[in-house]
Amino acid sequence: MRQTMKPARSKPPAPSFELKPYLDDRRERVNRFLDALLPATPARSGAPPTIEAAMRYSLSAGGKRLRPVLAIAAAEAVGGKISAAVLSVASSLELIHTYSLIHDDLPAMDNDDLRRGLPTNHKVFGEATAILAGDGLLTLAFELLSRPAVARAVAPRRLVEIIQEIAVASGHQGMVGGQLLDLQASRPAANGLGSPQTAPQAPIDEAALERIHRKKTGALIRASVRAGALVGGASSAALISLSRYGESIGLAFQIMDDILDVEGTSAEMGKTVKSDQTKGKSTYPAVLGLEASKRKLAQAIERALGALVRLGPAAEPLRAIAGYIASRRA
Amino acid sequence: MRQTMKPARSKPPAPSFELKPYLDDRRERVNRFLDALLPATPARSGAPPTIEAAMRYSLSAGGKRLRPVLAIAAAEAVGGKISAAVLSVASSLELIHTYSLIHDDLPAMDNDDLRRGLPTNHKVFGEATAILAGDGLLTLAFELLSRPAVARAVAPRRLVEIIQEIAVASGHQGMVGGQLLDLQASRPAANGLGSPQTAPQAPIDEAALERIHRKKTGALIRASVRAGALVGGASSAALISLSRYGESIGLAFQIMDDILDVEGTSAEMGKTVKSDQTKGKSTYPAVLGLEASKRKLAQAIERALGALVRLGPAAEPLRAIAGYIASRRA
Repeated sequence: MRQTMKPARSKPPAPSFELKPYLDDRRERVNRFLDALLPATPARSGAPPTIEAAMRYSLSAGGKRLRPVLAIAAAEAVGGKISAAVLSVASSLELIHTYSLIHDDLPAMDNDDLRRGLPTNHKVFGEATAILAGDGLLTLAFELLSRPAVARAVAPRRLVEIIQEIAVASGHQGMVGGQLLDLQASRPAANGLGSPQTAPQAPIDEAALERIHRKKTGALIRASVRAGALVGGASSAALISLSRYGESIGLAFQIMDDILDVEGTSAEMGKTVKSDQTKGKSTYPAVLGLEASKRKLAQAIERALGALVRLGPAAEPLRAIAGYIASRRA
Repeated sequence: MRQTMKPARSKPPAPSFELKPYLDDRRERVNRFLDALLPATPARSGAPPTIEAAMRYSLSAGGKRLRPVLAIAAAEAVGGKISAAVLSVASSLELIHTYSLIHDDLPAMDNDDLRRGLPTNHKVFGEATAILAGDGLLTLAFELLSRPAVARAVAPRRLVEIIQEIAVASGHQGMVGGQLLDLQASRPAANGLGSPQTAPQAPIDEAALERIHRKKTGALIRASVRAGALVGGASSAALISLSRYGESIGLAFQIMDDILDVEGTSAEMGKTVKSDQTKGKSTYPAVLGLEASKRKLAQAIERALGALVRLGPAAEPLRAIAGYIASRRA
C-alpha cells in the first residue's frame, strides 16, 4: 500500500526505465512457476500422464504472459512484493487464458491449426483430449487460487474477492460470453452457428464490436490488473485507478491485435495472418478503417496513462507496458 | 457442529424416516436456487442470451440433483441449517456436474444424442455453443462460491477450503482426468483416441476400473459430501467420517450405474441403455460379472453406513440416501 503522496504526471515511460529486462524477468518467474505447477516429469500427482502432457503443451508454447505480467506489475505498483501468492494469482490468469485458446482453436469453434507457431492442441492430442485439457486448465486456475499456501499468505476475505473477480471476468458474462458473440458475428460458414437465425443480418457497428472485445479479451485483462492490485494490497482509490488502466489497455490490446492481423507478417505473429479477414471476423480496421483504428488505439493508451497519474514511480512498469502494447509487432 | 453425544448404530434407514419427501424438498430448493441463478428471462446480466439459454437448458433438464442433495444432507448431518450459503455450495456442485455431462456428450467424446430423455446440448445449440456452455457452467460454479454474500455467511478461510476441495475433485487429478482415462479404456473406434499407442492392449482389470471411477464420478461425489460438511460446520472427526461415507457411496453409485446399464430399460434411464456396452466402455459387470458386482455394491453400502456410526439421527437422510443409491431404478 506504499504510494507516493505527490501524483506523478501522465507521460510516456521515462527513458531511464528499461521495459525489456523487466518483462524478461517477470515472464521468467511466471514460466518457472508454471513449470513447477505442471512438471515435465510428473511426480505422483495421480493424474493421467496424457492430460498433464496436453495441458503442459499449450501452457509452455511460449506466450507473451501479458496477463500474469500485468498482475505482477499491478501488485508492484501498489507496493506489493513478488511473493508466491502474487505468482499464484498471476499464473492462474495464464491458465485461464491458455484454456480459452485451446477451446477457441477447436474445429467446432475457430478451427485453427497453428498457434504461437506450433500445431494447436487438438492437432497434437486429438479433440477429446484438447477439450479436457482446456477444462483441466480452467479448473486448475481455481485450484491454484485456493491452495492452503495462498490462503495463508493472503487475507482469506481478500482471496475470495480475487477469485470472484477472476471468475466473473472469465465466465459467461465475460470471456466465455465474448467468444460466443465473436462466433455469432463471424461469417456463418466459419463456425457451427450458421443457421439463418444466428447469422448477422448486417456488418456490425463499432458499439457491437466493442461489446464483443470488452467481454472476449478486455474482461480478463482488466481482471488481471485488478487481481494483481488486490493481492498486492491496493487501497480502494488505487484499485479504481488501476481498473480504469486495465480497461483501457484491454481495448488498446485488441485494437492492436486487429491492426497486426492486417499489417503483421506471418513469421512475426506465429499464426496465419489475415486469418480474421479470411474467417469474416469483425475487426476494428474492418469497421472503422485503419487510420481511425490507430487514432482509437492512441486514445486508449492516453486514457491508460491518465489513469496512472495518481500512482507514483512504482507504476512505471505499467506505463511502459501501455506503450509496449501500442508498438508491439506481434 | 451440534452432534449427539451418543453414537447411533449403523443400520438401514429407520422406517420412521421418509426419504421421498426429503429428497423432493431438497431437490426443489436446489431447483429454485438454480432457477434464480440463471433465470428464464435474463434481467440485465449482460451475458449473450444464447449462452444463458444453452447453460440453462442442460441445467434444467431434470437431473437427480444427487450431488447438491448430498451436500445439503451432509451439512444437516453436522447440525447446519439449509442457508443460502449451503445452497450456493450445493448448487455449485450441480453446475460442475452438468458442465461435465455437456462436454462428455460432445461428438469428440462420448458422442451421445440423448441425455435425461432430451436431445443433448450440442444437438440443440451446436457444438461451439455447447463447449462454451460447459465452460460457462464450470466458471459459474466458482463465481457462485466466491460471491460476497457467501463470503459474508461462511468464514472466508473455510470458504477457501471448500473451493479447494471442489476444484481438486473436479480437475485433471479428479473428474477431468477420470474422463480421459475412461475414453482411453473404451474401444478406440468410439472416440478420437484411437491410435495404437492409446488403445488398451487388454481388457482392463478391477483396479484400473476402480481408478477410472474413483476419479470420474467418485471424486466429485466425495467432494459434495465434504463440501456440505465443511459449510455446515463439521468438526475434524465428523469430516473424516463423512469423507469415508462419500467415498463409499461414490463407488456404490458407479457400480449401480453400470448394473442399470445392463438391466435398466431405456424409458427408466432416459438415455440409450446398453450404450456403455455398445461403446466398449469398461463396466463392473463386464469386468467382475453381474453377481460379483452386486456383492461389491452391497459391501460399499455397508461401508458407507458404517462410516456414519458416530453421527446421530441427523445423519438419517445420508443413511437413507445410501440405501436409495443401491435400489434406484434409474
